[in-house]
Amino acid sequence: VRVAINGYGVIGRRLADAVAAQTDMELAGVVKVRADYKARLAVEKGYPLYAADEKSRTALKALGVSPRGVADDLISDVDIVVDACPDEVGAANKATYQRLGRRAIFQGGEEHDVAGFSFVAQCNYEAARGRQFVRVVSCNTTALCRVLHSLDGQFGLRRAGVVIARRAADPDETGKGPIDAISLDPVTIPSHHAHDVNTVLPQLKIVTMAIKVPTTHMHLHSLLLSLATPTSEAAVLEALEHTPRLLLITGREGFKSTASVIDYAREKKRSRNDVYEAVVWRDSVRADDSEAYLFLGVHQEAIVVPENVDAIRALCSQVAAAESMRLTNQTLGIAR
Amino acid sequence: VRVAINGYGVIGRRLADAVAAQTDMELAGVVKVRADYKARLAVEKGYPLYAADEKSRTALKALGVSPRGVADDLISDVDIVVDACPDEVGAANKATYQRLGRRAIFQGGEEHDVAGFSFVAQCNYEAARGRQFVRVVSCNTTALCRVLHSLDGQFGLRRAGVVIARRAADPDETGKGPIDAISLDPVTIPSHHAHDVNTVLPQLKIVTMAIKVPTTHMHLHSLLLSLATPTSEAAVLEALEHTPRLLLITGREGFKSTASVIDYAREKKRSRNDVYEAVVWRDSVRADDSEAYLFLGVHQEAIVVPENVDAIRALCSQVAAAESMRLTNQTLGIAR
Repeated sequence: VRVAINGYGVIGRRLADAVAAQTDMELAGVVKVRADYKARLAVEKGYPLYAADEKSRTALKALGVSPRGVADDLISDVDIVVDACPDEVGAANKATYQRLGRRAIFQGGEEHDVAGFSFVAQCNYEAARGRQFVRVVSCNTTALCRVLHSLDGQFGLRRAGVVIARRAADPDETGKGPIDAISLDPVTIPSHHAHDVNTVLPQLKIVTMAIKVPTTHMHLHSLLLSLATPTSEAAVLEALEHTPRLLLITGREGFKSTASVIDYAREKKRSRNDVYEAVVWRDSVRADDSEAYLFLGVHQEAIVVPENVDAIRALCSQVAAAESMRLTNQTLGIAR
Repeated sequence: VRVAINGYGVIGRRLADAVAAQTDMELAGVVKVRADYKARLAVEKGYPLYAADEKSRTALKALGVSPRGVADDLISDVDIVVDACPDEVGAANKATYQRLGRRAIFQGGEEHDVAGFSFVAQCNYEAARGRQFVRVVSCNTTALCRVLHSLDGQFGLRRAGVVIARRAADPDETGKGPIDAISLDPVTIPSHHAHDVNTVLPQLKIVTMAIKVPTTHMHLHSLLLSLATPTSEAAVLEALEHTPRLLLITGREGFKSTASVIDYAREKKRSRNDVYEAVVWRDSVRADDSEAYLFLGVHQEAIVVPENVDAIRALCSQVAAAESMRLTNQTLGIAR
């Protein structure tokens, strides 16, 4: 499968590496808008570089990295495009993919309607088959779908309440805030995340509340769940042990904050200290009759990477869900 | 009523001003441990300054601010001591208050058992009468008691779930973190706040989850409430409108974060930009059948100040709860 990555920012760079690591995929090229060190690094890695348009081509040439062409040249020559452009730019790009008759994967910054299908591998891989377009949901939604889909299947979820403390900015985003405040993001309830989870899990009753806090290291979710049947902490942990792409850690071992999770990923020599798994603190899990509670961490830069790789296979191959997830996990170093 | 303030830090300084502002109280003096600019400011304000012990007396003299004596000298000469010392120092001071036969008010950093009675004016002022010791609960507990006591009375609370995003440090605390992480504080659920609310409202079923985030501006609570009866947003707002010491604000008016609340207090020329009220975002209030949700802000440095003033009256006067709260509110500029 020949793959183009359109956009080479936070997600695009990671997807390029992930696609290049798959034996059943070929990274045909990456499309870059801005002329910066990231463009130079792409060329140094040997990735075929394309400019977004003629203006970008000129700027990139001035930087000394000559693109092989512009976006259309690349897109015409691949089986599928993964659009990793900023929010809403993907929607604007859709016309190009339609004009050139290419399959495309959009990111969670786009509305559900851009693709008409919102994807999380362990929830609905098979249903994505044969589609021209799918949308991989955002980092927060991906993490929630992994955990809630699993617990709903095991216990039946009557209602999920989730408070999302969002990281204010990625580590290299120096222009964003807040720097000394908790922002209500938004003030109104629910935040958009509840609706977004329902694009993947339409039956789930969920309310989300979101705040933004001054950190670059991961989002942190507080889950307050009402189950259809009384359960125990052991049973919830057992269900989580069998949930794919989940990392279970414990506070007693020193995981006291989001920063310690990222530090752990560095020690494990994960590429870019990426945590592809949804992270659950084992000792946060509490069950009280039909109520269950836990803390869930989300590495915003990384968690959607395996989903995008699987989405490529769902659209372009006959590989089954379990096999695709196994291949993806193996190449990225995800244990299960 | 002659009042001593033992401890002149974040809370003690505010209490000294608040007590000095009451016409039925006399600030007999403040006790200081460290020789720093705060001691000098106390003297400049004309507050009788006492050293915690002989060592402090020597240090304060070296700073050029001569104390009138040591703690015991002051405490022997007052009707009541408000202990505003750091966590657990208050418990150690209790023996002194007992030895000298003085009434005392402790802060929320102490355990409930230190006083055997935990106080929030609008919940249990009258029950504090005749006691030698009471404990004013912590900032987070005070805010939760104000809101939950009111809503429980109006609708019946079947269960309260609360996620508390705590400010990492007060504005002048330069040694505390985190500076780029969300700490789980603690990892285990519930946090101590649920138990602490039950020291004031013993019947309430409540679970709290706490995280710590890099900001100095207020705590921010997300409330997820199950009510005994279905209700509407208008009915919840109506109940909040009639809850004492609550400030209702709206995101539409530009209150998008904790920092805008503090900025508002500055504009209102509140002493030290103090927000004595629990703060509820009006447009965050959401009711869905028997579930209700809202965001609640807590100025950690200020919210317990009016409670301490009322606690003094509850222990040392015949003034009724409503009249005490009216007097306190009037002197501090609290609308209701």
